[in-house]
Amino acid sequence: MENHKESSASTGWKVKASQTSNNTFNPIRAIVDGMVITPNSDKEMIALSLGDPTVFGNFPPPDTAVQGLLDAVTSGKYNGYGPSYGHVEARAAVANHVTTDGAVVDKGDVYLSCGCSDALNMAITVLADRGDNILVPCPGFSLYKTLSISQGIDVKLYKCKPEKCWETDLDHMASLIDSRTKAIVVVNPSNPCGSNFSRQHICDIIKVAEEYRIPIIADEIYADIVFKNERFVSCASMSANVPILSCGGIAKKFLVPGWRLGWVVVHDRHGIFGTEIRMGLVKLSQRILGPCTLIQGALPAILSTPKSFHLETIRKLEENADYLFNQINGLPGLNPIKPTAAMYMMVGFDKQHYPEFKDDVAFTERLISEQSVFCLPAKCFEYPNYFRVVLSVPRNKTEEACARLKKFCDMHYHP
Amino acid sequence: MENHKESSASTGWKVKASQTSNNTFNPIRAIVDGMVITPNSDKEMIALSLGDPTVFGNFPPPDTAVQGLLDAVTSGKYNGYGPSYGHVEARAAVANHVTTDGAVVDKGDVYLSCGCSDALNMAITVLADRGDNILVPCPGFSLYKTLSISQGIDVKLYKCKPEKCWETDLDHMASLIDSRTKAIVVVNPSNPCGSNFSRQHICDIIKVAEEYRIPIIADEIYADIVFKNERFVSCASMSANVPILSCGGIAKKFLVPGWRLGWVVVHDRHGIFGTEIRMGLVKLSQRILGPCTLIQGALPAILSTPKSFHLETIRKLEENADYLFNQINGLPGLNPIKPTAAMYMMVGFDKQHYPEFKDDVAFTERLISEQSVFCLPAKCFEYPNYFRVVLSVPRNKTEEACARLKKFCDMHYHP
Repeated sequence: MENHKESSASTGWKVKASQTSNNTFNPIRAIVDGMVITPNSDKEMIALSLGDPTVFGNFPPPDTAVQGLLDAVTSGKYNGYGPSYGHVEARAAVANHVTTDGAVVDKGDVYLSCGCSDALNMAITVLADRGDNILVPCPGFSLYKTLSISQGIDVKLYKCKPEKCWETDLDHMASLIDSRTKAIVVVNPSNPCGSNFSRQHICDIIKVAEEYRIPIIADEIYADIVFKNERFVSCASMSANVPILSCGGIAKKFLVPGWRLGWVVVHDRHGIFGTEIRMGLVKLSQRILGPCTLIQGALPAILSTPKSFHLETIRKLEENADYLFNQINGLPGLNPIKPTAAMYMMVGFDKQHYPEFKDDVAFTERLISEQSVFCLPAKCFEYPNYFRVVLSVPRNKTEEACARLKKFCDMHYHP
Repeated sequence: MENHKESSASTGWKVKASQTSNNTFNPIRAIVDGMVITPNSDKEMIALSLGDPTVFGNFPPPDTAVQGLLDAVTSGKYNGYGPSYGHVEARAAVANHVTTDGAVVDKGDVYLSCGCSDALNMAITVLADRGDNILVPCPGFSLYKTLSISQGIDVKLYKCKPEKCWETDLDHMASLIDSRTKAIVVVNPSNPCGSNFSRQHICDIIKVAEEYRIPIIADEIYADIVFKNERFVSCASMSANVPILSCGGIAKKFLVPGWRLGWVVVHDRHGIFGTEIRMGLVKLSQRILGPCTLIQGALPAILSTPKSFHLETIRKLEENADYLFNQINGLPGLNPIKPTAAMYMMVGFDKQHYPEFKDDVAFTERLISEQSVFCLPAKCFEYPNYFRVVLSVPRNKTEEACARLKKFCDMHYHP
């Protein structure tokens, strides 16, 4: 992939990549690709950085999903095109899956997509145009920005408060709203924070949205992955008046992120979105014609997975979370924020006590080169001086990583 | 999906669908959804309109594909995220599959996508921005326009000549090129025409592209599906100097359009695209993170399908093509253009002799209401006074459709 452009200048060709592609900027890639990642060759690398629970083999998918897919393949019924927004049986299964007392969903409210990324792309794109803006949480997953900036949609970051379990700074959120604000993205449970909002906090966010008449895009890909004594409350179940596009998928709860099946669910009690937004979602789905039909065929089986499977997933995540929190909380100059959901924990590091490292990138780079432990610098989430660790790494590796992190802190901490 | 917007005006909410979504215009849907489709209740509907070879069950996928996929599922190796532009083994298999003497492809040249639609979206989007334009064939598949207009990219239609087996009107093509022209889309074999360009004609198109220094986007989703005595010649194999993005996939050749696996292959002998376009493709792939990893896992097996499978597919298509051509050629006032490839035939109808029908939409609507035979009006391809029939319908249904079409013509033809 060497760049021969200079030598071809004389040939009269002038082909440039589009601004759209140049602006499709993924901060995680930009930062990670720019990092010096040279592990200590004496120690096996342990990646606490990967938001993919499948990499270590300790979180296999449910049998229902695998068998459902084998059945879909052998049935021969799912080789052709489906409707671009999904087979009706698959949409009905999603409607049943996401319905709660407070928010009954019909199959007509469900639009399938190629993973939750595509769902978020559809939700953002149907509401906002070039020059508009959306509000997104900080720290927050980088994809909202990648998708928006690519299309000339601006992103405004609203603050979340680590000292209040990452609750939204509502005043700050409200202060960012202007006449071009087309949506508030609410992420709950949160990547990268591992937080789960209370019912009250969800209501408070909705109140702001209602006051300013701004629809909500709810990224609920981690729906239901909340630790014991926690309860997941969807935005839609709390919203009497604010219309919501809720984005979800099977990636995390069913541990199959590679299968690329997601959805947008339209919650619109008062017809504020009307037919227009629904038609817009249909039209956008026609660009790439929807997710793999085999996965759609298996979806009713996948979504029928017994609750015990998810409880076991959550048990393992919480066990790791407790261990990681307790270990890291005991290390000097590190401030982990205890997670209550999802698969992540954020850890602050106190620069005063680690004067060798100018930022989280430098800290995590050195942690790799000395201890072969990879934590993701939270600069990737526009939140410097923190790093993110994942809760899905097997226990023995997690323990080893904590022991190495302790060595690292002991060596570099300045009282 | 009733529109309650008026009643909600008083609530202060003003949520509109984005221009982007409003402009995501699919002419096929717009025309077909606007048609009066009321079959004759005495006759079973026969759809010669659907460009999906799987609907009637007479074109099942190859065993290699089904078994490959079952193996991928049971292996447990393909549940996690892959690289957004595809697993290296899958990319290597595509490289091997599309390599020809004239155009050797490396795995590094292959970018996987969610079906060929997504491949075309990536190819158009990486080359053109709002206000730029691309040239597309007329008649031609509508997706190029849907994808472009959605992003504010203009589309200019260049003529193809039915009397010359749908060859490109090269003078017309050249006359459309201006300073904002970023790509020429070449579709071969063609949907909706069922044509296959000669080696010479491919060279002639490339000559125009080279003279004006315009890259080619080659839609080659029907690659290799050419009738006996025909040979498929890829654009890349004939291009010494013009850089080409070749878009393809498994949908048609392997009869699994619902599996949604496609690719963009970069052909760039002189580095005219340089790293910039390749990086652009990578960045664009990060928006939705690539095709279903299970299909990627099965791809080496799928692409190893024996040639005999494809020859049998082609034999059946050609047999139907011969039958349809001979039957329709014998009907008054209809002018079928004999296909040599793909799965379609275009049929002109002579308005002078069918004065009851103001256009192809009226003709095909009445054909449905009287004879329950559905042909796609070629207005969908911006080519009025033609209609498209598919070659993949089972023989007995094809015969019945032809008999009904004869009755229809006998009844409505005015000498």
